[in-house]
Amino acid sequence: MHLEVSNPKLSPTNPPRRLLLGPGPQNAHPRVHSAMALPQVGHMDPGFMFIMEETKSLLKYVWQTSNRFTIPVSGTGSAAWEAAIANLTEPGDVHLICVNGYFGERALDMHSRYGAVIRKISKPDGEVFALDDIRAGIQEHKPKLVWLCHAETSTGTLQPMDGVGDLCRENNCLLLLDTVTSICGSPIYLDKWKIDAAYAGGQKCMGCPPGVSCLSFNDRAISKLEKRNSPVASWYLDLTMIKKYLDVPTGAVRTYHHTAPISMIYAMRESLQLVSEEGLEAAWARHKDVASLLYKKLSEMEGFEMHVKDQAIRNPALTTVRVPTDVPPDQLIKYVREKYEIEIGGGLGSLKDKIIRIGLMGYNARPDNVLLVIAAIKEAVDAIRGKTTTV
Amino acid sequence: MHLEVSNPKLSPTNPPRRLLLGPGPQNAHPRVHSAMALPQVGHMDPGFMFIMEETKSLLKYVWQTSNRFTIPVSGTGSAAWEAAIANLTEPGDVHLICVNGYFGERALDMHSRYGAVIRKISKPDGEVFALDDIRAGIQEHKPKLVWLCHAETSTGTLQPMDGVGDLCRENNCLLLLDTVTSICGSPIYLDKWKIDAAYAGGQKCMGCPPGVSCLSFNDRAISKLEKRNSPVASWYLDLTMIKKYLDVPTGAVRTYHHTAPISMIYAMRESLQLVSEEGLEAAWARHKDVASLLYKKLSEMEGFEMHVKDQAIRNPALTTVRVPTDVPPDQLIKYVREKYEIEIGGGLGSLKDKIIRIGLMGYNARPDNVLLVIAAIKEAVDAIRGKTTTV
Repeated sequence: MHLEVSNPKLSPTNPPRRLLLGPGPQNAHPRVHSAMALPQVGHMDPGFMFIMEETKSLLKYVWQTSNRFTIPVSGTGSAAWEAAIANLTEPGDVHLICVNGYFGERALDMHSRYGAVIRKISKPDGEVFALDDIRAGIQEHKPKLVWLCHAETSTGTLQPMDGVGDLCRENNCLLLLDTVTSICGSPIYLDKWKIDAAYAGGQKCMGCPPGVSCLSFNDRAISKLEKRNSPVASWYLDLTMIKKYLDVPTGAVRTYHHTAPISMIYAMRESLQLVSEEGLEAAWARHKDVASLLYKKLSEMEGFEMHVKDQAIRNPALTTVRVPTDVPPDQLIKYVREKYEIEIGGGLGSLKDKIIRIGLMGYNARPDNVLLVIAAIKEAVDAIRGKTTTV
Repeated sequence: MHLEVSNPKLSPTNPPRRLLLGPGPQNAHPRVHSAMALPQVGHMDPGFMFIMEETKSLLKYVWQTSNRFTIPVSGTGSAAWEAAIANLTEPGDVHLICVNGYFGERALDMHSRYGAVIRKISKPDGEVFALDDIRAGIQEHKPKLVWLCHAETSTGTLQPMDGVGDLCRENNCLLLLDTVTSICGSPIYLDKWKIDAAYAGGQKCMGCPPGVSCLSFNDRAISKLEKRNSPVASWYLDLTMIKKYLDVPTGAVRTYHHTAPISMIYAMRESLQLVSEEGLEAAWARHKDVASLLYKKLSEMEGFEMHVKDQAIRNPALTTVRVPTDVPPDQLIKYVREKYEIEIGGGLGSLKDKIIRIGLMGYNARPDNVLLVIAAIKEAVDAIRGKTTTV
């Protein structure tokens, strides 16, 4: 048979150059790119399993957990989230979803797909939950699982965690924490905070390209998994099977489940290695210091207001900003991308066309990037206003 | 709070060197590694969407399909498979699974997770289905979907496809084809063969590292998706949502779903580019020629027998071999890995400890690799026999 679909005859892959100062992904450190180019090995190779174990130990460090079951997940952050839900939900379980932004809204959908009975408590975009809010929600709905977002990527908040873990234990429910945009950028103590399950993406403050994520279950979560009455609804994300590949006693036989994303594991391993070399507390401090510089510069610009008023609940890695009313955010974003190849983010969900989002994460959390993005934004505002007046 | 989980203080990422001549992954072409190190861009960036569209057009070429909905999937091959099932299954649908190896057995499990009523027809490991077998299965079970494996990675067979598509259309059922280990290595004509849905991994003959996969739906499959009564059971793999991100008319607004694995898309784009530069028919011919050389060399070695007797149904990319009875396959595999850093595969499922699997795929499908692996196997056999006689 001859070919009916013709050869498209394209040129080699050639992406544009961008400085990524939006909500993620971020530019990775050159060493991470080099790690991705290291030789492929097989997913059952003892040499690869050694790297996998190293990656697990680094994940435990940055999450501050001794959870044995702390693993990379073969997909982007949403896959790790879905893995947590698929494995910790049995049809009919009540889940209390704490909604204070776009990702909370998404949780309502995602958790319901696995048969959870959804209950929610809500806070306006840009606010966080008080312990009493969560207590009232738990007492009213008696959930089996509470989903809480540590860092809402759509709003820029950072949820205070004091007392939440104890509250969930007292009420015999699991606490599932989204740490996608806080891991490696802000203090997280999974064990001290008594988090039962957490997940994260690699492409934010960890400094890894997107394509791999991570998950940690403590004994309470593992117990829920082991006592399931129904099979896990997803085969790809079935942790009872993945456990036999990724979490076996030293020297025991590992069972093939799916082909791991080798190069992305290298990338995550090397991103975490960079955090380890810097020191976790130093990485947290760097994100905070760079954010402070950004806040200072923004405070000097007329018409720019912090969307999250209270600095104590701001995620230093991701700053949400209301811009002057005569400056459409999409025009500003387009200007800095087209003129300077800088990506900053727009609003998501209810904040669409209302804010810009400036991410200073991982390798990109540096003071030079603050100077640059502020200068570019200033020029964009002038240009947009100039254009407006000449129309 | 101070850190309780200490810094593991490891060295930089350092995988072993391996020549991967097993069932996959394979070593990628150096240009593919370089592509992974290209600058990160955002997943909503117009520059990235351009690369995504290029990747889609290259996928159409290598699958020989004009299916508009031909996309990369953000996970390994099993994720693309699960995406096909999750989107094409409604609870209670009868699925006819054609089982002739380990992956057929796996299908029974995977499809059942999505509520399919499982019916199966079986052939022994190393055989393929005759059209009459499939016809009888369809007439008996009246399925809504037939799952068939084009290239069974556990056994090394290649399923003849003549008439299967017509048969499914006549009986008003969808045909889902697994092309994980045949894409880019053996002729596939999705359109001419009337395949309704197909999926593949990138890490076999396409020459991409694992971590990204692909999926194609024709209009019949899209129609099934659009007429669903129940929501897609997986959020991460929900193609009704992914469609709004990946498959929109030129110039239309794309809707964020999840963060795409940017570097892995570059890798897939560049792997496909290499196939395009070589020419698809030349790539098919190269895999076939290299396999013929391997068959010839193996035929000269006493006690080595082809597991798939009939050359017409052998997958050239993956050769399954029964080794002399006094040579345990696991010892042979260990010897060539430890002495020469060459990976060859063992048997899976019912073929465990019975065969070895030699993959010559993508960049590794070269005659020099045949000479090398044959020489290494010969030495391993001598060494194992030497050891045995001295015990």
